[in-house]
Amino acid sequence: MPQLSRKGIELPTSPIRKLVIYSERAKEKGVEVLHLNIGQPDIAAPKEAIDAVTNSNLNLLPYGPSQGTLSYREKLVAYYSKHSITIGTDDIIVTTGASEALTFALNVICDAGDEIIIPEPFYANYNGFASAASVCVVPVISEFHSQFQLPALENINEKITPKTKAILLCNPSNPTGYVYSKNEIDTLCELAIKHDIFLIVDEVYREFIHGGDPHYSVLSNEKAGQHTVMIDSVSKRYSMCGARVGSLVSKNNTLIQNVLKFAHLRLSPPTYALMASEAALSAPESYLEGVINEYTSRRNTLIKHLEQIPYVEVSHPMGAFYCIVKLPVKDAEDFSKFLLTDFNFDNQTVMLAPAKGFY
Amino acid sequence: MPQLSRKGIELPTSPIRKLVIYSERAKEKGVEVLHLNIGQPDIAAPKEAIDAVTNSNLNLLPYGPSQGTLSYREKLVAYYSKHSITIGTDDIIVTTGASEALTFALNVICDAGDEIIIPEPFYANYNGFASAASVCVVPVISEFHSQFQLPALENINEKITPKTKAILLCNPSNPTGYVYSKNEIDTLCELAIKHDIFLIVDEVYREFIHGGDPHYSVLSNEKAGQHTVMIDSVSKRYSMCGARVGSLVSKNNTLIQNVLKFAHLRLSPPTYALMASEAALSAPESYLEGVINEYTSRRNTLIKHLEQIPYVEVSHPMGAFYCIVKLPVKDAEDFSKFLLTDFNFDNQTVMLAPAKGFY
Repeated sequence: MPQLSRKGIELPTSPIRKLVIYSERAKEKGVEVLHLNIGQPDIAAPKEAIDAVTNSNLNLLPYGPSQGTLSYREKLVAYYSKHSITIGTDDIIVTTGASEALTFALNVICDAGDEIIIPEPFYANYNGFASAASVCVVPVISEFHSQFQLPALENINEKITPKTKAILLCNPSNPTGYVYSKNEIDTLCELAIKHDIFLIVDEVYREFIHGGDPHYSVLSNEKAGQHTVMIDSVSKRYSMCGARVGSLVSKNNTLIQNVLKFAHLRLSPPTYALMASEAALSAPESYLEGVINEYTSRRNTLIKHLEQIPYVEVSHPMGAFYCIVKLPVKDAEDFSKFLLTDFNFDNQTVMLAPAKGFY
Repeated sequence: MPQLSRKGIELPTSPIRKLVIYSERAKEKGVEVLHLNIGQPDIAAPKEAIDAVTNSNLNLLPYGPSQGTLSYREKLVAYYSKHSITIGTDDIIVTTGASEALTFALNVICDAGDEIIIPEPFYANYNGFASAASVCVVPVISEFHSQFQLPALENINEKITPKTKAILLCNPSNPTGYVYSKNEIDTLCELAIKHDIFLIVDEVYREFIHGGDPHYSVLSNEKAGQHTVMIDSVSKRYSMCGARVGSLVSKNNTLIQNVLKFAHLRLSPPTYALMASEAALSAPESYLEGVINEYTSRRNTLIKHLEQIPYVEVSHPMGAFYCIVKLPVKDAEDFSKFLLTDFNFDNQTVMLAPAKGFY
């Protein structure tokens, strides 16, 4: 048979996929598996979003504008302004999920062989997007004992080479839950300007802050507008992972024009999902307050009970809905497998994601 | 500002985009512009598809399986079997439009610098998908005077180099409307086997055949299963371009497994669009019969009236819904601009796509 590309062959597959098989077998045996391994929200989406689709009155589904409808982008501008982000409709490209936004960002910024720096641990798919774009990920370790705060600037600085094109952050972070401070973001903005590289920040968990300082967007730094790119998505905010609607936002117009070429190529984002996403922005503020309260309460329950177990060390995530835990086990993957194959309590068990999948 | 990638800068933009500005201005002046420049169907989608979405009862939109739901793939297997295509559910990856299917195919088959051969003229975005994947397009001219049939085998053969990884066809063809015969497809399958390369066929216009031989899918060739990939989409068939649902089908399991890695990366195809696409397969056969009759009737009207104009030469497309015409004008782009800026009849005009955008 014909040879396939190295890209497809070298693309990493998440170690989670092995565990999925055991979780399926547990379910077949009648054990209920609680999926703590994936960011798949179980809270209802805004009624406004669902109603917009079920009350829609389309005869056919035409292509929409490649950058997203103007009406949606106008509402996004108003939404972002409530988060101290001042942008215009031309600064936004609506994408098919944050996945596409990240793919666009990497393709527009990096040529094959270029490097991006990412604090580790990081969302496993960042590795995949980078591989698919033939970009090398250069990790900089962040530490459990300091809640995974930004690594020391000298540690980042020493990774910068002529091939470095960007630093990529997730803020609040998947998987650590760390919320980068204004000071940390501003410091990285200065670094990006100094080395004339980009700072890309994935802010899909913007709202999910469990006390402490408010979230500070990379786009709120006025000086670094030509060097910053923000990635967003409706997936987690509105429990609409299956919608596949995200956005790429930047004040760098040349970058946006190049992203638009990739957007033209794939024609348009999905129609119904766009309708739902636009309507979700009309949900009352109480909707997101309720969602955040629920996630904060679950976080507190998790931390409280884990801390009662001897030899378990728990990080205290201030954002998103993930939590990294040090368990007194030899191998987290074996333990996760054990939970699915040999353990249950009242016929229930949990599926975890071994942290090594994020390194 | 930081340097952007060559990929983004070199990505071709369709010459149509310049004309779009003139069409917008014409509309502002109150002139109705009939868009003959784009494959945006105006026929109603199947009622079953629309109803599936408006009657849906979701509380939230979770991620679905990356390869598409099993129920949809099962229905696709039944649909394809009616077109003499014998495949299983594991041979199908459901994609976010044919655009994504083509991107996956190129990324899985080609490394940077590899070549694909495409009969010219071809769908302009093939150039874009290739550029985005750092793949070189090697065109082989097909001729107006022979209705754009497959170029002579020796012309294709002489383009094959050690870097050639695939031949890409659109059948029925956008933009020529040519329908490749069983003999032509079988010949290319033999060539693919002989040189151990892939034959990728975009069959999104499968149903739109205006008389003559029936459509022959590349997957109906039993011998070349390890060398063939079929690209599909619901966009044109069901007037659902905005759904963004397509598929990549191949009997080559290693290729499918590699495509699945790219599919995992972007998580899942859009939920509502999948529901609509699955339900569309339950539409009665009369639905597509009506659609095909309508397009055949429009094609016949177009050809009949164009042939009455002196010095106009008209191709006789046997499939899809495009038609390439030789007009007695110096420059087709100037003429298309003229139609939008200085011409109207009863306050109506047409927007055309200059054929040079397909070379």
